[in-house]
Formats: sequence, structure tokens, C-alpha cells
Amino acid sequence: MPELRRDPIVGRWVIIDDTDPKKPEDFPVEPHRYDDPSHCPFCYGNEQMTPPEISAFRFDKTPPNGPGWQVRVVPNKFPALQIEGELDRRGIGMLDLSNGIGAHEVIVETPYHNKDVPDLELAEVEKILEMYVVRSKDLEKDKRFKYIMIFKNYGAAAGATLDHNHSQLIALPMVPKNVLEEITGSMAYYEFKERCIFCDIIRQEIQEKERIIAQNNSFISFCPFVPRFPFEMWIAPKSHKLSYCDISKEEITEFAGILKESLTRMRVALNDPSYNFIIHTSPINETDKPGYHWHIEIMPRLSRIAGFEWGTGFYAVPTPPEVAIKYLRNAKI
Amino acid sequence: MPELRRDPIVGRWVIIDDTDPKKPEDFPVEPHRYDDPSHCPFCYGNEQMTPPEISAFRFDKTPPNGPGWQVRVVPNKFPALQIEGELDRRGIGMLDLSNGIGAHEVIVETPYHNKDVPDLELAEVEKILEMYVVRSKDLEKDKRFKYIMIFKNYGAAAGATLDHNHSQLIALPMVPKNVLEEITGSMAYYEFKERCIFCDIIRQEIQEKERIIAQNNSFISFCPFVPRFPFEMWIAPKSHKLSYCDISKEEITEFAGILKESLTRMRVALNDPSYNFIIHTSPINETDKPGYHWHIEIMPRLSRIAGFEWGTGFYAVPTPPEVAIKYLRNAKI
Repeated sequence: MPELRRDPIVGRWVIIDDTDPKKPEDFPVEPHRYDDPSHCPFCYGNEQMTPPEISAFRFDKTPPNGPGWQVRVVPNKFPALQIEGELDRRGIGMLDLSNGIGAHEVIVETPYHNKDVPDLELAEVEKILEMYVVRSKDLEKDKRFKYIMIFKNYGAAAGATLDHNHSQLIALPMVPKNVLEEITGSMAYYEFKERCIFCDIIRQEIQEKERIIAQNNSFISFCPFVPRFPFEMWIAPKSHKLSYCDISKEEITEFAGILKESLTRMRVALNDPSYNFIIHTSPINETDKPGYHWHIEIMPRLSRIAGFEWGTGFYAVPTPPEVAIKYLRNAKI
Repeated sequence: MPELRRDPIVGRWVIIDDTDPKKPEDFPVEPHRYDDPSHCPFCYGNEQMTPPEISAFRFDKTPPNGPGWQVRVVPNKFPALQIEGELDRRGIGMLDLSNGIGAHEVIVETPYHNKDVPDLELAEVEKILEMYVVRSKDLEKDKRFKYIMIFKNYGAAAGATLDHNHSQLIALPMVPKNVLEEITGSMAYYEFKERCIFCDIIRQEIQEKERIIAQNNSFISFCPFVPRFPFEMWIAPKSHKLSYCDISKEEITEFAGILKESLTRMRVALNDPSYNFIIHTSPINETDKPGYHWHIEIMPRLSRIAGFEWGTGFYAVPTPPEVAIKYLRNAKI
């Protein structure tokens, strides 16, 4: 019999189908096509094909906009928002709008054309995660921005338009709706319990042991009890941390390890699927939200979202997390 | 410069890109493949291939589960929820769940294998819309249900798994999150203004004339000021109506006309895209929500949703509604 589960943070109900759970082989995966690297603007040696770089980790003080880099940040050539100008919020009758001020950056994760996180050395993954901190801290100084969103689209089915492995950063002049909902939900829990809801979820997952993919000293990777997608994975710091930017050097090493392991298990178990990940962190300078807790949500893109999900915010998940975890744990890595 | 627009009902911010708006030809459409009708469970003459019918509009009192029907309702063979049993909500530690009680029905809209609404006679479309009322009114009597969701997936990109034209109905034991948000938002507006927010939006659209696709006495079809998708269309009754079930016989005729025209314009302008539509109506027996107003949202599935949208609830729309409307209005129908 299908089961209805309620997300404890935002109150979303999800249908979990455990009558005939879908296995990895039930999801057809489009093979990734790798473009010709000679035309790839993110490839080593093609640095002049992007707008001038914003930041990079470079060897031996090599000059910007040429080879010698390990992680490189450039403005998005087709930005969703524009960096110049003052924010101008206004109304047309009852309708509200603003000019589209914001930053939209691309973090080229590696000089290699066809390597993703599972293929990189741990030290290389650390550098990507460190660059997220560098760029976030820089953009946080801009008073126009209220939120910094770091996310990744891997593979065409996940919305990637370039093959070369990259993540993106968008700085926004307002806190996006989904984040506001998470904050509202977790603060309501905090007011009731005087505890962080994420800390409580993590504690229960560690106790139950049923949905854990991996753990180390500082982090846990698990299949959430109420996923929106089959094989969805969350990674969170075990102790209470509000903002991704507060991550320490040692924690970056641990985060890199568990992220690499989780993505590798997903790749092996699901035959290299397209995926998205999103870092959920607190709004800029919000230090008084004791209920929030940063984490990353990883969503393999295995099935298409239909009208039902759009209309209701009510997801039907064909693989219970308790089944997904078996494939992820047993993946030979 | 891109523009940020805020949905007046739920507060969602959307990025509208008007620097280089995408035109219909910029969205590649997968051609629809029509299966062999001899194996189609929804085809005329194949009635024994479905579970026994729940309801049908039939000619000359033909017996159920054989030919002679115009619109036919059957249980979904792979239901997301099960109809039998009592609702049992419970907790596991801090987590909440329930058994998956609900109804999941398929409304086969026409005996023809490859006809959609634009291909049908007006009287045939009326019968589909009338069947939505018949099924809703029947399921509303079941005390276990709180919400009835009617939606349609047309084409594989929209999540349809069978080619033969059909819509679906799901009766739920709770009000889904997206509907709750619309109700909360519209009630907040009502408390502030003592007016229905949907009525105000419709009034402003009629006054501005900028985004109207079609109108008749009772209905307006328009591109909303804050869409989530390019070429999104909404149809709403012009006067204040809470629930779809309250639609009169005359209004069904008008709704059928404007729905057929809107879907036909979309088909011509966008080269027969996959699409979803969802009827947004009030929860069962909620007669005290003066701020809510039923409507239908139609979303052609032209582009893939990437990580950014999932993470933020912050959509980037590459075609402003003011541009989309031109193609929809100029479509030769």
C-alpha cells in the first residue's frame, strides 16, 4: 500500500510507492555526449573564450585568463541577472516588480573536459568547495544582496547546457521562496521545541541507521525520509551550523570526502545519471535564526515531473528511500 | 535588462528575460509518437483492457464496459493512492506519515486515439468538462477526502505515459501545499483589502488589455504577469467563483469554448507542444474562503527545469508574457 509522508520542515506531503518500488534499471539514463573540447570555453587553454575571470586558484602565480588554474570563476555569459545598477522595486497597479539586479557566476570545477567530482582527487574537490566560500564571502559584502545560491546542473536532463563540469552561483536581492519556507518551518519547530529541526532529523537518522549512506566526524549523508525524487540524497553537518560560509578548513576536507563518496555511489548505482545539487544555506547576515542548518540536497534526474507534481507540490516517489539506500550502499566504489 | 516580478498571490519571485526573448522556434518540440491503437486500453472497442468503468457518458443507454461512450472514467491501473481503507495518520519519532488513502481516476476524454481538445467539437469538449463536475461531486461525498485535483499530462515531455488523450483526477486526504499557499496568500490579501485578489488581477488584466488571449461573457484567458514557464496561460471565471464544481451549464459551454481556443492557439503557435494543465479549485466544503477563485493553469513544457528553479522556487522565464501573447494572438486558427 502506498504511504503518505509529511516533510517535517516545510509540511509537504509526498506519496511513497512501496508496492512495486522502481529499481535503478527501471530508469533509462540518457548517455552523456561530450562535445569537442577544442570549442569548449571552460577547457584549459581556451580561457579567452570566457569573459575575464573573477577569481581562480592558480599555480605559481600564473597570470589571470590563461592556463595555470585549478578552479576558475567567470561571469555567466548569459546571466539571469545583471550586476550593475541600483535595485529599484516598484508597482504597476497591484503588481510588483524590480529591475533584475544580481550576480550570476560560473565555477569551472576542473581544467579537464570530462571529469566530474567522482573522477577528481580529494584535494581537487576541496578546492571547488573552498572557492564556493571565497565567492560567497566576497558577494556577501554587497549590500544589495540578500541571498547566495550555489547549485550545479550535471547532464542535459538536469539543465546543463555545457558538458564541461561546472557549478553556478547566483546572488539575489531577495530571499527565494523555498528558502523562506524552510526557515519559517524550522523556526516554528524551534519556537515549539527550542531545538533545531535539522539537528533532530540528523539525530533520528543516526539512531535509526536505516537511511545513512556515509558518515564521518563532521558530516552525514543520507536518503531523507521524505524525498521529492527517487534516490535523493542530503548531506548535512552533524553539529548545528547556520551558514555554509562558516565551514572550517578541516570541515572542507571532510565535506569533500563525503560529497565525493555520495556522488560516486550515485554514479555507480544509477549508471551516471544527470543530477542537480543545491546548497541550502541561511540568508546573508541572518545570525538570529537558531532553527536553520545548512545542507546540500542532491537530486538525480531520473524521471520527468508531470502535472500532478506541479499542481499540488505533492510528489509521487516511485522508490522509497529505504529501498534506494540499499543500492547506494551496495554500489561497488 | 532582466526584470524581477513577484507573484501577487504566493509571493514567488520570477526572473523575466526581455533582453533576448526566446521565440517559439527556439524551443525544440519532440514530435508525438502515436502507439498502435489496437493495443490502446483507452480506444473504442478495447474497453475490456481497463478496470471496470466508474462513470461514462453513453449513447442510447449502451451497457458499461463496451462501446457506445463519449467520455469514460476508469480507475487508474497504477494508482498513486488506494481507495480502500481508513485514514491512519501516525508518527515515527519526529516524522509524520499516513497510509496512502485516496482516489486516482482516469478520464478518457474521447474515443478517438489521436484527437486532443483542439480537434474535438465544442459539444465534445463540454462533455469532458461536465464529467469533471460529475466525478468531483461524487467524490466530495467521501468524508475522508479534503481536496480534488484535476489535471492533464499531454505528451511524453509532460509526463504522459499513454498517447490516447486523457486527464486525471486525484482525491486527497489533505489539502496539498501549493493550494494551501494560494489560499493563505489570497486570504492575506482579502483581509487587507476586503477584495478577492484573483478578481483584482482579472480586473487589471481587462483594463490593461496587454496579456489577454481571449474572453467571452464569463471567462478570460490570459498570459499571467508572473508566469513560471514561457507561454504559460491561465483561464479564470470573470466573476468571483470559489469552486469549479459550482460551474453552471451555460458556463461550461463558455469554458469549453475558451479552453479549446486557448489550446488551439498554443498548438499552432508552438507546434503542438507537450503540456500540463491543472484546475486550481478550493478544498472540499470550504465555503468561507472569500479570497479564493478557481482557475485553470496551462503550462506548455518547452524547457527543462534545472537546479536553480528547484532550489529557489525562483523561476527564470526566457519569454516575457508580453512577447508570448503576440504569438498566441497571431496564431492562425
